[in-house]
Amino acid sequence: MEAADLSHHTSRRFNEDLERVRAKVSAMGGFVEEQLDRALTALVAGDSALGQSVATQDYKVNGMEVSIDEECSRILATRAPAAGDLRMIVATIKAITDLERIGDECEKIALIAARLATDRLDADLAVRTARSDRIVDEEYESIQRQCITFMMEDPRMIRRALDVMWVVRSLERIGDHAKNVCEYVIYMVHGKDVRHRSLERVEQELKSQNPRD
Amino acid sequence: MEAADLSHHTSRRFNEDLERVRAKVSAMGGFVEEQLDRALTALVAGDSALGQSVATQDYKVNGMEVSIDEECSRILATRAPAAGDLRMIVATIKAITDLERIGDECEKIALIAARLATDRLDADLAVRTARSDRIVDEEYESIQRQCITFMMEDPRMIRRALDVMWVVRSLERIGDHAKNVCEYVIYMVHGKDVRHRSLERVEQELKSQNPRD
Repeated sequence: MEAADLSHHTSRRFNEDLERVRAKVSAMGGFVEEQLDRALTALVAGDSALGQSVATQDYKVNGMEVSIDEECSRILATRAPAAGDLRMIVATIKAITDLERIGDECEKIALIAARLATDRLDADLAVRTARSDRIVDEEYESIQRQCITFMMEDPRMIRRALDVMWVVRSLERIGDHAKNVCEYVIYMVHGKDVRHRSLERVEQELKSQNPRD
Repeated sequence: MEAADLSHHTSRRFNEDLERVRAKVSAMGGFVEEQLDRALTALVAGDSALGQSVATQDYKVNGMEVSIDEECSRILATRAPAAGDLRMIVATIKAITDLERIGDECEKIALIAARLATDRLDADLAVRTARSDRIVDEEYESIQRQCITFMMEDPRMIRRALDVMWVVRSLERIGDHAKNVCEYVIYMVHGKDVRHRSLERVEQELKSQNPRD
């Protein structure tokens, strides 16, 4: 697992470069996670000010992406990384795009939270949605069906129900981005491009590659 | 404009490598464009078979992304590209992610087209939506408002109106991805990272860099 050990380079500076990228990506991931937590808290607690604050913090995520991209380009230009290091840089360039877009979805949720809070809606559906850790596809379908029923029963609720559907869709999309990031990590560590392949097949392949795992 | 001229390398093979990447990206862009055209045609013409066919072709877009990524990684590892060439490779790695996601949105539109066609809906709104070349933010808001009115007037139309809203949202997202691709092109040609900055500021900066443009 060459990519996991960053201390194998004769050049101390190269090690420091890679370590810095790793630390920056980790900080970006942590901050995006906070943004999501706070956006969902704003939604559940009906805290309009918190929602606004999350939305205005999104520029920080954007800045982190730009800065890490620059660092990666600099490393590619000056260090000519090979093998696992190269994969780490390429995977980083891809992964931070997804992190940045998770940030965008958090911003959307935060803005909806701010709006719903102003409406003083007892957003029962939104709360249930926000509390579910993870939106799997079936859950998504079921919440969508619930929202439609809700709207049909009381057309005055259409606008609010739509807001809930946008939140659910954002969560679903965040799930997709998170899956992408995981795939870049597999690529980085195992050198295998597993995108667009079934999870079962990937597990099988990784097992046959590392029989003791 | 070093990135625009790929024939300046002493190594003929390097030139061929870069030219091949460029040709592949161009083919991928062309194919994605076709997918979008055909998805919208399926929607407008109520052609369920065409919608299905577009959806089943999405795997080709995925394959193109994986193949171009591999090519780029190989070039980074073997050619140690610098300056404009390096920017071209990095911009390519980023841009094809967006092209692939435009492909995903086309697939979604195609599946909705297939479903709407089966419903034999005279999808007036969908047609108007699909015909508008470009969904700007105000148009998006206006179509969303129209759909909500539509749903309130006749709750039996909620499901169909939602389908139209998903299409509009997909088109809006395609607009976002297209904007990303444009930004990568600016980065490649001018070496400027213009993401997350206003268009006015970018135009101003590019002008002050090339006063005769």
